Amino acid sequence: MISTRLTDRFGLDHPVVSAPMARAGGGRLAAAVTAGGGLGLIGGGYCDRDWIRAELDAAGNAAVGMGFITWKLDQAPGLLEEVLERRPRAVFLSFGDPVPHAAAIAGAGVPLFAQVQSVEDARRAVAAGAAVIVAQGTEAGGHGAKRATLTLVPEVADYLAAAAPDTILLAAGGIADGRGLAAALMLGAEGVLCGTRFWATAESLVPEAQKRAALEADGDATLRGSVIDVARGIDWPARFDLRTMRNPFIDRWQGDLPGLAGNAAEKAAFARAADAGDIDTAPAIVGEGIGVIRDLPGAAEIPARLVAEAEALLTGGWRR
Amino acid sequence: MISTRLTDRFGLDHPVVSAPMARAGGGRLAAAVTAGGGLGLIGGGYCDRDWIRAELDAAGNAAVGMGFITWKLDQAPGLLEEVLERRPRAVFLSFGDPVPHAAAIAGAGVPLFAQVQSVEDARRAVAAGAAVIVAQGTEAGGHGAKRATLTLVPEVADYLAAAAPDTILLAAGGIADGRGLAAALMLGAEGVLCGTRFWATAESLVPEAQKRAALEADGDATLRGSVIDVARGIDWPARFDLRTMRNPFIDRWQGDLPGLAGNAAEKAAFARAADAGDIDTAPAIVGEGIGVIRDLPGAAEIPARLVAEAEALLTGGWRR
Repeated sequence: MISTRLTDRFGLDHPVVSAPMARAGGGRLAAAVTAGGGLGLIGGGYCDRDWIRAELDAAGNAAVGMGFITWKLDQAPGLLEEVLERRPRAVFLSFGDPVPHAAAIAGAGVPLFAQVQSVEDARRAVAAGAAVIVAQGTEAGGHGAKRATLTLVPEVADYLAAAAPDTILLAAGGIADGRGLAAALMLGAEGVLCGTRFWATAESLVPEAQKRAALEADGDATLRGSVIDVARGIDWPARFDLRTMRNPFIDRWQGDLPGLAGNAAEKAAFARAADAGDIDTAPAIVGEGIGVIRDLPGAAEIPARLVAEAEALLTGGWRR
Repeated sequence: MISTRLTDRFGLDHPVVSAPMARAGGGRLAAAVTAGGGLGLIGGGYCDRDWIRAELDAAGNAAVGMGFITWKLDQAPGLLEEVLERRPRAVFLSFGDPVPHAAAIAGAGVPLFAQVQSVEDARRAVAAGAAVIVAQGTEAGGHGAKRATLTLVPEVADYLAAAAPDTILLAAGGIADGRGLAAALMLGAEGVLCGTRFWATAESLVPEAQKRAALEADGDATLRGSVIDVARGIDWPARFDLRTMRNPFIDRWQGDLPGLAGNAAEKAAFARAADAGDIDTAPAIVGEGIGVIRDLPGAAEIPARLVAEAEALLTGGWRR
């Protein structure tokens, strides 16, 4: 067992949280993570109310949290309040300013997890009264920014030690096995948030063809960029781009985003490919950690597995 | 004491190597690192023969190694042989194919350190018979590529375990204190190579104004790009760019590299600024790790300090 302030305060067996992956992380996945001793978060992402209601139902009575893309939540009046009435175990916000939403979350007595991509973001998360700050590095799959986990975590840890010592720090981005968990603890985190590792499970809501292709890949096979957001017509703030597997569609368009933006036929083709699971056009949305992932287990197995691997290292197994 | 195959084979007190920083890492710095129980490497970088001879002299009898930018060494016939006659403790190659140089290095009985930025690079380093592979993440200051240390190290470790278990693996990029060293050991490295931490020492050959400015910065203040290489007229392979502190010169030109390339007056102004230590034009070449660096000690102090901090964590100090 690895016990930290995260496990103590949230009553978890393991300091492992599943990233609220938009579209991929539904209620069944989140419930499985919680059943496995971690904390599961549903990927409320783009604030599709029907999807969110259905996935909260799918989680049943499991103690799971809900994640939102903050700048999308800004555009979805009433949604936060509706979700808070369902008594989520946590609300997780990333990619925007958490402060405007903080009072409603605190008023409902729900802990706020604020994901940050820079030291500057961490200051804003403290201003929002976050119970947990998740320092996310550029290694992560899906949306993120430029700082890397290895440097962002200790730097935010130093900031919190001085400014908000009661705030719990988690590491995210590139953590896919017990080596990553153990490293995160060395850097000053009290737990980890894993996306790609839970993406590659039986419960994640992604096409099987994407899962199989990702298992074959090494970590060199991913890249950051905005092709996929342009293809989907999603107007993300310029600071954030998206890590996915590289594919022919991205190679074709990454040098010509305006051309793609104005090409309705290509955008329609992308939408069809996403529905059909055509990975040469719609890539797997995974992080660099895919390079150490070699199976598709049930998500409930993952927290204990990461902890067992990390404990072996932390008790001297790193010595040869 | 932290003992690994690196310390055993190279007779070191501490598994800490200084990065061969071009222009910044001279003979005095390398000798100080070796005197402090680590292994110091001179930054032979761009293969300036007079500079290399002078810095080897400056290292005196200290057991130090020599680093080269591989694609520049390709263009410097006879230089490797001349350096090998000086009996360096190691030859370190990065940014290019080490294989064409491997026979000369092996023939001189000198260990080859090959720095890699991808899993694919690691395969080439094994083909070159490298004794030590250094997995360098994008967090690093100076030149590098896109993969992050946190994911590249365990993935290369898995590859080496299967393909070349006798090869020693070091982590580089973003490691600036004992937390980083401890994390690197968890990830499967047997030591670390630090650049920025040794850049910020009394012995490094950079303008004092750069050192002072960097100490004030947090890790958000650096970025990767090619403005500085274009300003200097150095034709780096497109795969590699340069992490520095961000400054007004970079903000002005990063969106217009062709404009800078054709602007002789701006390039001349950059050269003057570099000589004068004008940090608004010629930035400090540091990595994201600068955010946890707060002093400018003698380099000889660093290896023992990192090990003491790491040991405290590895023996349970990470628990609160």
